[in-house]
Amino acid sequence: MKSDLWITEKQTEDLAISFRVKKTLHEEQTDFQHLALVDTYEFGRMLFLDNCVMTSIKDEFVYHEMISLVALNTHPNPEHVLVIGGGDGGAIREIVKHPKVKTATLVEIDGRVIETSKEYLPEIAAAFDNPKVTVLVDDGIKHIQENKNKYDVILVDSTDPVGPAVGLFASDFYKNVYDALREDGIMVAQSESPFMHQDLIKGIHNDLKHIFPLVKLYLAAIPTYPTGLWSFTLASKKHDPQKVNPEDIADTNTRYYNKNIHFAAFVLPNFAAEIFK
Amino acid sequence: MKSDLWITEKQTEDLAISFRVKKTLHEEQTDFQHLALVDTYEFGRMLFLDNCVMTSIKDEFVYHEMISLVALNTHPNPEHVLVIGGGDGGAIREIVKHPKVKTATLVEIDGRVIETSKEYLPEIAAAFDNPKVTVLVDDGIKHIQENKNKYDVILVDSTDPVGPAVGLFASDFYKNVYDALREDGIMVAQSESPFMHQDLIKGIHNDLKHIFPLVKLYLAAIPTYPTGLWSFTLASKKHDPQKVNPEDIADTNTRYYNKNIHFAAFVLPNFAAEIFK
Repeated sequence: MKSDLWITEKQTEDLAISFRVKKTLHEEQTDFQHLALVDTYEFGRMLFLDNCVMTSIKDEFVYHEMISLVALNTHPNPEHVLVIGGGDGGAIREIVKHPKVKTATLVEIDGRVIETSKEYLPEIAAAFDNPKVTVLVDDGIKHIQENKNKYDVILVDSTDPVGPAVGLFASDFYKNVYDALREDGIMVAQSESPFMHQDLIKGIHNDLKHIFPLVKLYLAAIPTYPTGLWSFTLASKKHDPQKVNPEDIADTNTRYYNKNIHFAAFVLPNFAAEIFK
Repeated sequence: MKSDLWITEKQTEDLAISFRVKKTLHEEQTDFQHLALVDTYEFGRMLFLDNCVMTSIKDEFVYHEMISLVALNTHPNPEHVLVIGGGDGGAIREIVKHPKVKTATLVEIDGRVIETSKEYLPEIAAAFDNPKVTVLVDDGIKHIQENKNKYDVILVDSTDPVGPAVGLFASDFYKNVYDALREDGIMVAQSESPFMHQDLIKGIHNDLKHIFPLVKLYLAAIPTYPTGLWSFTLASKKHDPQKVNPEDIADTNTRYYNKNIHFAAFVLPNFAAEIFK
């Protein structure tokens, strides 16, 4: 018989999502946040940080493909890629599959996310041993300040803009990301739900517009995130994701992303387009 | 201070969504189902049938635009439109806005849905008094059997395939829908979530493929529905929604649908495309 134990995320003060628990695998207070790994009936094993869903075995592919592959297939030569945050390793797993990538660097502030993901989410933390990968347990803000003109693509795979991730949503940080990118570099940041976080999305967009010549929002459907619709903000020094030649898009055995999704993800419903008006 | 009263939908046996309640507006057992109208903090007033979310003031526009406007803008001359179910009136509201529509007929089995929607969801039930509209409180299956070669577009705006709606997911019903359509008619049915209801989607698709020459799935993001991603199945005797001239798409003051969404909605992520393999 199934347990009647549930884990609930208060997605807002007035909205909650609850998952029936098969087993609590691990729980600890790290130096940075509360971390829990829970096996659920509906979404399989799930990672929670400060009681927010970070990823689940069942739907992680959407987030990890969509934060990574749009930029990787926009840049003509994405040799050196940096992920800030992303300690579960899912973005890194997608990055190393891309044939043009030579180095993939992960800078995660909380080493316990990496260690527990390796233990409990091996399908996601699948590429840490890949020879292209360097893992640094460090402050992403500091790393960005200390590295100039180095990366082709930088992914800001952060938690929500509370707790340790606040600095990853700041204008100063974006300026340093610009400088850490090479002359035709691209950054992507997860930027929350267009149904709920319009002010945040608009703020990120406006901040980036002062720094990068090209800033665009794209969307993907992620069931375990609030409202089920998530946004990513792409900022580019030169290359336009909507002007990619579809034939140049690498086939990397994906479950969400494909040549047509690459373009369709940028098509915004009116309510989302209106965020920028 | 806000209440700590919540209304919870068990979206599956193992997944629940909960909305903090401002006020319970109305509750009754109709001849067909349990009906509740609840004012919530996050999504405003909401209609629940048999404890499932049907619609909310905050996100209703997505469902109602997307079930209606894709077919209406695919058919070159959608003069006579039928909605089966849809007692909240949201689809009818979108239909009568379309400049080519001459008659919009609603056949809803449960008159209490119509009456309570008029009272508590007037923004949604906004077009019942429009001169184009005829409302019939009747069995949609019977109506379809008794009307042949009559409609240009038929929308099956049903509840989930349990309770009174089961017959609206049957192959015999689709055959009768085909006959109720004119020679170049189009039908659209809501067909649940591609993340969860793959077998249902595949079954609907296969049934319709035996009847209509052209059957296509399209998607829209609906926060209050399970997984947040919803599908619609369009079956057409002649016109292809992906071959519409964008310039022919009517501008009807929408919040989700637009000329580009018309096409992007048919772009399926790999996991959804694989349903049909």
